[in-house]
Amino acid sequence: MQRFAKFASFVGIEYAIILAPMAGGTSTPALVAAVSNAGGLGSMGAGYMTPEQIAETIAQIRALTNRPFAVNLFAGGPDGTGSRDVARMLELMTHHHARVGLPPPTTPEDSLPSFEKQVEVILDANVPIFSFTFGIPAAGIIARMKARGIKLMGTATTVAEARALHAAGVDAIVVQGSEAGAHRGTFLGSCEDSLIGTLALVPQIVDAVTLPVIASGGIMDGRGIVAAAALGASGVQMGTAFLACPESGASRAYQAAVLAARDDATILTRAFSGRLARGIANSFAIDMKEYERALLPYPTQNNLTRPMRTAAAKQGDADHLSLWAGQAAPLARAMPAADLVALLIKESADIAASL
Amino acid sequence: MQRFAKFASFVGIEYAIILAPMAGGTSTPALVAAVSNAGGLGSMGAGYMTPEQIAETIAQIRALTNRPFAVNLFAGGPDGTGSRDVARMLELMTHHHARVGLPPPTTPEDSLPSFEKQVEVILDANVPIFSFTFGIPAAGIIARMKARGIKLMGTATTVAEARALHAAGVDAIVVQGSEAGAHRGTFLGSCEDSLIGTLALVPQIVDAVTLPVIASGGIMDGRGIVAAAALGASGVQMGTAFLACPESGASRAYQAAVLAARDDATILTRAFSGRLARGIANSFAIDMKEYERALLPYPTQNNLTRPMRTAAAKQGDADHLSLWAGQAAPLARAMPAADLVALLIKESADIAASL
Repeated sequence: MQRFAKFASFVGIEYAIILAPMAGGTSTPALVAAVSNAGGLGSMGAGYMTPEQIAETIAQIRALTNRPFAVNLFAGGPDGTGSRDVARMLELMTHHHARVGLPPPTTPEDSLPSFEKQVEVILDANVPIFSFTFGIPAAGIIARMKARGIKLMGTATTVAEARALHAAGVDAIVVQGSEAGAHRGTFLGSCEDSLIGTLALVPQIVDAVTLPVIASGGIMDGRGIVAAAALGASGVQMGTAFLACPESGASRAYQAAVLAARDDATILTRAFSGRLARGIANSFAIDMKEYERALLPYPTQNNLTRPMRTAAAKQGDADHLSLWAGQAAPLARAMPAADLVALLIKESADIAASL
Repeated sequence: MQRFAKFASFVGIEYAIILAPMAGGTSTPALVAAVSNAGGLGSMGAGYMTPEQIAETIAQIRALTNRPFAVNLFAGGPDGTGSRDVARMLELMTHHHARVGLPPPTTPEDSLPSFEKQVEVILDANVPIFSFTFGIPAAGIIARMKARGIKLMGTATTVAEARALHAAGVDAIVVQGSEAGAHRGTFLGSCEDSLIGTLALVPQIVDAVTLPVIASGGIMDGRGIVAAAALGASGVQMGTAFLACPESGASRAYQAAVLAARDDATILTRAFSGRLARGIANSFAIDMKEYERALLPYPTQNNLTRPMRTAAAKQGDADHLSLWAGQAAPLARAMPAADLVALLIKESADIAASL
């Protein structure tokens, strides 16, 4: 675990376990701070937040911890995939709105908060670590981050993406294997053609770049952590493993679905956001399968389904929520995040010693 | 690596590295014997062989080694997927036949050699280990194998399949992760819905059964072997890693394609056999993508494409061959199988000691 120790030292944490940034409210300031206070690195998924919300969230995290933490943004995303027939999709959604007690949907926004304005908040707040997915920020942004001493972590789903991130000057690369929950981070090529298993992808990227590689996708316990270390990783990023922690922002219905998951319960779907993502199968994702070609582009589809998802979360209706989770979701454990981090460290030490 | 040692002892080998059975001539008696003589377990992929060919092949292996080896058969396979319009497919294949200098194809056989008759050869020859994929043999066959002291290894791609194999009385379960090259072993549910990464699947199956679990899919070197051990596996099965060995039956064009593979070069296709399999993308697989619905069922499609594949192999034409390979194919190394097994053992020891 020497690479883990070296990376932890570089970032200023005790153990190279990174909480995956889970946008849309799943990663809360309390969860981020709990992971950082326990010796790992908490990450806030801020991609959907306005600049004002990001500033406020960073202040909340800083009120809870003085340890390093990361803020994650979407450095891209729209990929041109999706229908332009908004009327057709509004018609299809009317049925699902009725099921959660909402009036028919209205035309959704076709954009997200400005990435450039979000970045200014990261710079102003001097966030310790800036992580990103769906692309690579412009060279000027990377240069300004580096000038401030902000450490940069980019997300790769292929060897080619890892090489591009390396060339762009990041400090570490998060490798997202096909097992991973939520959105695919793919930005070169199609998401469907970039589904490489963690065990196959990590060593290839370790060989291709000289940067620390953080493994993600399917890692849920000490077994996965030590496996990642054996593959040459310098750390792990884990999201699904923390979903059922009390500090998680996942709704009760979402947490219950994760804890009830058996065998491989996940599917890849564009139904919720217009972008390919892995989650536990539910009736909305399954019903929308036959309307795959009617789905709007990301992020329009995501904006369209938000009212339904928000209403469903309030009602405890797991069938109209995005239940993002990875392929090892059945290994999720419900316990406070600090306890989970401590357990993961202990399990890893025990397994490493047994090999 | 205690579970590895226990499983090796159970099977009567030195180290729990299993050569994946590669049917269609890729696993040769020389390759099987070389792996067994080096302390691993060679496996012969005999699914496409007649009973007479199997008997002859077993005799050839025994002439080259007195160590344990495995013979692998297809305990199922046809899944009802595929078109019944043979004329349409014959028409589509005419173009590809012309490209390898063959006359138009004729109606293919719709079956494989009898599994029951193949099994009799395994029993008569008292093969040390019988491994199988695509299903579970009838209870009577399993009972007769066990009565002879033949050890049984079945293939699972999901937790549910592992449970079914456990209940059927096998001695070990080969877990095939989504990274794996060649045919998916799926027999409960669809191949497309059973693509679980090795890192996510192995620990779930280790938790679900009390049998030794053999990890496969994406394992190419000592890093993958130690990762599998960390996940709780009792051994590894590796195919792509041995493709470029001189003892491999892979044609020169196939070996060259594996050694030239960069990044993720593989795709999942039904074009060659009618059954989902992973291989390096080539023009036949890509050209047939738009005719996915015209593909005949397995094994009819496999029988149909055999003349093309045989001609292409002779001509060194990698575009009309099935280039089965896993997602970590770029890590393949060309060296004698005995040297590769020795290297894998050394790498594993070094990595395990470093953790």
